[in-house]
Amino acid sequence: MYKIKIITVGKTKEAWLDEAMAEFLKRLKPTAEIEFHLAKDNAQLEAWVKKEPGVICLDPKGKLMDSEEFSKFLLECLQKGGSRLTFVIGGPEGLPESLKKSPLVSFSPMTFTHQMARLILIEQIYRAFEIAKGTRYHK
Amino acid sequence: MYKIKIITVGKTKEAWLDEAMAEFLKRLKPTAEIEFHLAKDNAQLEAWVKKEPGVICLDPKGKLMDSEEFSKFLLECLQKGGSRLTFVIGGPEGLPESLKKSPLVSFSPMTFTHQMARLILIEQIYRAFEIAKGTRYHK
Repeated sequence: MYKIKIITVGKTKEAWLDEAMAEFLKRLKPTAEIEFHLAKDNAQLEAWVKKEPGVICLDPKGKLMDSEEFSKFLLECLQKGGSRLTFVIGGPEGLPESLKKSPLVSFSPMTFTHQMARLILIEQIYRAFEIAKGTRYHK
Repeated sequence: MYKIKIITVGKTKEAWLDEAMAEFLKRLKPTAEIEFHLAKDNAQLEAWVKKEPGVICLDPKGKLMDSEEFSKFLLECLQKGGSRLTFVIGGPEGLPESLKKSPLVSFSPMTFTHQMARLILIEQIYRAFEIAKGTRYHK
């Protein structure tokens, strides 16, 4: 069982986001335990991230990957990290400077709300495991 | 008032997607009328698209843009098209070959479900208008 933490800044305001996340968390349940941590600001985000051993940050200026590359990358990171990994999504002010030295992954050069970024991340994590398992989800 | 059609293949199965879309459609109401057309397959999609004057297709292999570039591009296309524009999102089999000659825009090299692609598109259309208006939404 993989353990993945997702640390982000800000609250969930939208009911639809909670429903969408619940759907993907349910599908991920046999494979990975996903924990969400919502920091109130960048200072708290930095303090939390310092304690994490393996961290990947999402940033529009990070490395662009297709879903197959992200699948390989995710599995490699989990292997190196003893099945544990932490993703960080910056808030409205972007990522704190201190975190820009971590591996940066980009889903898109476009800017998304952090709510949308969370949903995209969780869908791509699910897709990544399905690609690795060779199921038909990603076709 | 802009008129934007979004043509896609497949159904909405998720209640959360309908809610999320409704939220953005409400916010877009003073600026743009958005119509969704769900084709049952690629053949119907092609038949519908033939009748549209200005078409942009979403494809992972299309041109990557940041949100500011997409905003400019969208407004230019709307200006050229007399305030009308049609977006096409392919289904599970991807875009039909005949449509790959249209301008192709990519949100990401990653593959998304067409449901996710619809949500991302509508959020980026809303963001594009907010960028053009100079509001703080996109900050």
